[in-house]
Amino acid sequence: MTESNQDDNAGEQLNLSDETLRQRLNRIIFGWESPAGKLFDVILIWAICISVLVLMLESVEWIANAYLPWLRGAEWVFTLFFTVEYAARLYCAERRMEYAKSFYGIVDLLSILPSYLAFFIPGANNLLIFRLLRVLRVFRILKLARYLTEANLLLRTMMLARRKILVFFSSVLVLSVIFGSLMYIVEGPENGFTSIPISIYWTIVTITTVGYGDIVPQTPIGQIISAMAMLTGYSIIAVPTGILTAELTQEMHRERYSRTCTGCERTGHEADAVHCRYCGSALHSQQKKSDT
Amino acid sequence: MTESNQDDNAGEQLNLSDETLRQRLNRIIFGWESPAGKLFDVILIWAICISVLVLMLESVEWIANAYLPWLRGAEWVFTLFFTVEYAARLYCAERRMEYAKSFYGIVDLLSILPSYLAFFIPGANNLLIFRLLRVLRVFRILKLARYLTEANLLLRTMMLARRKILVFFSSVLVLSVIFGSLMYIVEGPENGFTSIPISIYWTIVTITTVGYGDIVPQTPIGQIISAMAMLTGYSIIAVPTGILTAELTQEMHRERYSRTCTGCERTGHEADAVHCRYCGSALHSQQKKSDT
Amino acid sequence: MTESNQDDNAGEQLNLSDETLRQRLNRIIFGWESPAGKLFDVILIWAICISVLVLMLESVEWIANAYLPWLRGAEWVFTLFFTVEYAARLYCAERRMEYAKSFYGIVDLLSILPSYLAFFIPGANNLLIFRLLRVLRVFRILKLARYLTEANLLLRTMMLARRKILVFFSSVLVLSVIFGSLMYIVEGPENGFTSIPISIYWTIVTITTVGYGDIVPQTPIGQIISAMAMLTGYSIIAVPTGILTAELTQEMHRERYSRTCTGCERTGHEADAVHCRYCGSALHSQQKKSDT
Amino acid sequence: MTESNQDDNAGEQLNLSDETLRQRLNRIIFGWESPAGKLFDVILIWAICISVLVLMLESVEWIANAYLPWLRGAEWVFTLFFTVEYAARLYCAERRMEYAKSFYGIVDLLSILPSYLAFFIPGANNLLIFRLLRVLRVFRILKLARYLTEANLLLRTMMLARRKILVFFSSVLVLSVIFGSLMYIVEGPENGFTSIPISIYWTIVTITTVGYGDIVPQTPIGQIISAMAMLTGYSIIAVPTGILTAELTQEMHRERYSRTCTGCERTGHEADAVHCRYCGSALHSQQKKSDT
Repeated sequence: MTESNQDDNAGEQLNLSDETLRQRLNRIIFGWESPAGKLFDVILIWAICISVLVLMLESVEWIANAYLPWLRGAEWVFTLFFTVEYAARLYCAERRMEYAKSFYGIVDLLSILPSYLAFFIPGANNLLIFRLLRVLRVFRILKLARYLTEANLLLRTMMLARRKILVFFSSVLVLSVIFGSLMYIVEGPENGFTSIPISIYWTIVTITTVGYGDIVPQTPIGQIISAMAMLTGYSIIAVPTGILTAELTQEMHRERYSRTCTGCERTGHEADAVHCRYCGSALHSQQKKSDT
Repeated sequence: MTESNQDDNAGEQLNLSDETLRQRLNRIIFGWESPAGKLFDVILIWAICISVLVLMLESVEWIANAYLPWLRGAEWVFTLFFTVEYAARLYCAERRMEYAKSFYGIVDLLSILPSYLAFFIPGANNLLIFRLLRVLRVFRILKLARYLTEANLLLRTMMLARRKILVFFSSVLVLSVIFGSLMYIVEGPENGFTSIPISIYWTIVTITTVGYGDIVPQTPIGQIISAMAMLTGYSIIAVPTGILTAELTQEMHRERYSRTCTGCERTGHEADAVHCRYCGSALHSQQKKSDT
Repeated sequence: MTESNQDDNAGEQLNLSDETLRQRLNRIIFGWESPAGKLFDVILIWAICISVLVLMLESVEWIANAYLPWLRGAEWVFTLFFTVEYAARLYCAERRMEYAKSFYGIVDLLSILPSYLAFFIPGANNLLIFRLLRVLRVFRILKLARYLTEANLLLRTMMLARRKILVFFSSVLVLSVIFGSLMYIVEGPENGFTSIPISIYWTIVTITTVGYGDIVPQTPIGQIISAMAMLTGYSIIAVPTGILTAELTQEMHRERYSRTCTGCERTGHEADAVHCRYCGSALHSQQKKSDT
Repeated sequence: MTESNQDDNAGEQLNLSDETLRQRLNRIIFGWESPAGKLFDVILIWAICISVLVLMLESVEWIANAYLPWLRGAEWVFTLFFTVEYAARLYCAERRMEYAKSFYGIVDLLSILPSYLAFFIPGANNLLIFRLLRVLRVFRILKLARYLTEANLLLRTMMLARRKILVFFSSVLVLSVIFGSLMYIVEGPENGFTSIPISIYWTIVTITTVGYGDIVPQTPIGQIISAMAMLTGYSIIAVPTGILTAELTQEMHRERYSRTCTGCERTGHEADAVHCRYCGSALHSQQKKSDT
């Protein structure tokens, strides 16, 4: 924080050249359009993926025993790299406090803090578990996905369908509570349905057709009820699919017909059309967003 | 019942002020439009959810041992609250007997009765299991869902598709009976397929792709037949999805084109259109029901 | 057979009255339109369902021990009823040999034969297992389903999609063979993958997301490969759904727009429209096939 | 390789008759249109299927013990047949090196090489496992599928949807990493979640609704998180289905409207239309590609 304030003061003194540097850094770190920005994003994604991979491998006992020094070394390299990145982001962010308080700002900080705490405070080795917060940084990959028009289309569709999907989920939960209570009464603790929350957990396992098999109905009536729960789950899976497909079809249809001919003002051109099919004028592709 | 009749008589005597009170209560308890009605519904939903949660927690052994007095206390608070609510509903319902005999009326009564019976009749502690009937009250949440246009659209679609889905379920059941009998003959009691009903239960577990694994085919022929059952289940899951999606697409299409231009009476306008695309008059949005 | 030939001769002698009886019986037994035909079909379906239920219950040990005489009695009643029905069908079928050799004719015969064989031949008690062939008679229910327009639409759609679904199934099988062989090499007999056919069975269990858990990968590489198989299965389930939905949407669209106004010859009327929306003439409903 | 070069030289010397033979062979082996080409393909597919079946059966212990000489004999027959086929393909391929270096060329070579190596090198019996590479030849069946218009449509649709499905898979993987790490922290090694990679494997098993049940959550918090993972998996399965259905609907729509009237050059005719609906000229069916 103090560092970022110093940067701020420095920024006011060396106005000209510094602004250029900050702006350029901002374009590279936060932007995506320039070649340098693309390169930075690609390197960052790889660094996140590999650092997560290193953390994963450290949790595998035989790998940890054999390669612990290497893994720890790699981790410090990544911690330093992410520290530099965090400082750079703080330095060149347009609104520093807003970045620091944003979801990504907090995740960026949390992904480097535990390593330092474990180093400086002797008894804080247990904090290492928090290093796993670094996993949250993979969300950055999803953030990048926003730039892909495909992800855009999917996200927009899901936003349009969000209330329908909420209604669907409430129904599934209500059904789970009712089926779960019923199974608790019918099967009882002696058949593994030790409490209603466990029964509801079992119902969700069954309705979503996961079916671990750690708890299974033993009584005939319990088996009939669970068969009904399965068939219910099997058929209501159609509901979110139906919702999403219907929304997606409309979205794709809307996108496809959003191109307007500048010659005759008519719409309805295929996504890969070059000329207007009514008057033959060349079509501009500024609104052509998908399927290239 | 006697109380409700007395209320009736009272209603006839104090005609003016009472009618107003009953009507106002009716609007609050059964209605949804007024702010007070909305508040009442929100409070009721929370009370139902928390009372169900209390019942659930009581079934977990270590929680019951540690917090039983608190849970019992909370339960009596909810029983009293639901009793007052039931009395109020009986008092202000337009047709009292119809409410008392309706599905929700019976569920409302059944959700409070067991607590009283267990209190007044000493040996009726076993009746406590019936308190779980209170779980059925969560259906009220679904009832509220009816006011949401999204739930409305989904329900209407399911009503349209109900016969197709019935045909689909009959086919699944017939297939289950045939596959189940086949597996009973092929695998036999020594491999866990102890009877035909159990085999049919296994087939439903398999066709719905739940797959508990408590009963698994052991013989090669049994494994071939069950592989066929799996592939059948895997592909017929497409049928309800197909049905629902097709219906939903049509329903959304119909809804979208249900806006009528007041200028030329023509329909077929996009949901976000502001002017009629035929005559240019401004479109009113009173019929725009979804996706806002 | 001999009986049916005698009936044939009798039919030639008593031409007039017999033809009427045969035709009437034919209309009742094979037809569906007349009230008597509907009643016969409903009784037959119930008889099939209950006789299958009796067979099922007989396979449950404790029920068989307690109620065997009743179940046997019920079975003989059904055997006699189905024998009379088979004789009547043979008698009144338009082309007797064709019915006797048809799928339903053979199933009808096979469903009554084992009971008689077990009765007349002492050592043939094992034949009782063949009584389960009676289960195949439930196909008659599916046959009835043909008269329902909903089932008709679904069947027609599946016929249209049959080649696409065949291509899909071939791909699933090829994938199963490849994944299965890979898992056999990677995991080997010591982890439960005792042979390639067993590995392929496991792959089908995994790809269809059934997941019994009787065989599970133990090695890291095996787990990576099976994760890939799961994700493959999880996403290709979209293919049959996509195929069917697309076909169903087209079919429903075609059906909906198949009504033509006799006034202006224009099509495109909603399924529930009464008047043409262009010229106002009354619409005839002879082509209105679905969604009533 | 040497053999193929000799063939090349021979091809240059006996120009006329040889070219005809090569071209004819090429048409039979690589082509599909001529009756001889079709016959060759059908025989080849059967040979591949049976040879794979023989390999499979050899892996079943009791079959291997009883019929090993027969299986080995059958295998040598197939090895010789595939050797001749490979030589013929090399001989008549238009560009020999390209075929030899193509995917199918390498698979064809790899499917015959192990048998010879195991025969000539005494200690190379372990190489027999590589004979399973022959399984890859079943891809040839998929290659044939390309000629089917149905497979073509499905492939084209999947190509169009490939970026959307890639985005979807990345999201599923990111979700798996996050849920897996969470479960590793919550459940820990004592409940079977021995490392983060194992936890991620478990998450994929859960999200895809496979649910083996070899690892199951034991703690209440773990069960709540896994219930969330299940519901997530249960609903995001809708995404690939939605994508594919929407693409497929568009593709089928495009195909259906690809018929052009020769009279007025207008398109948009139903697949079963005989006359143009604008000018009434007879429609030719040369472009009618699907659903016959």
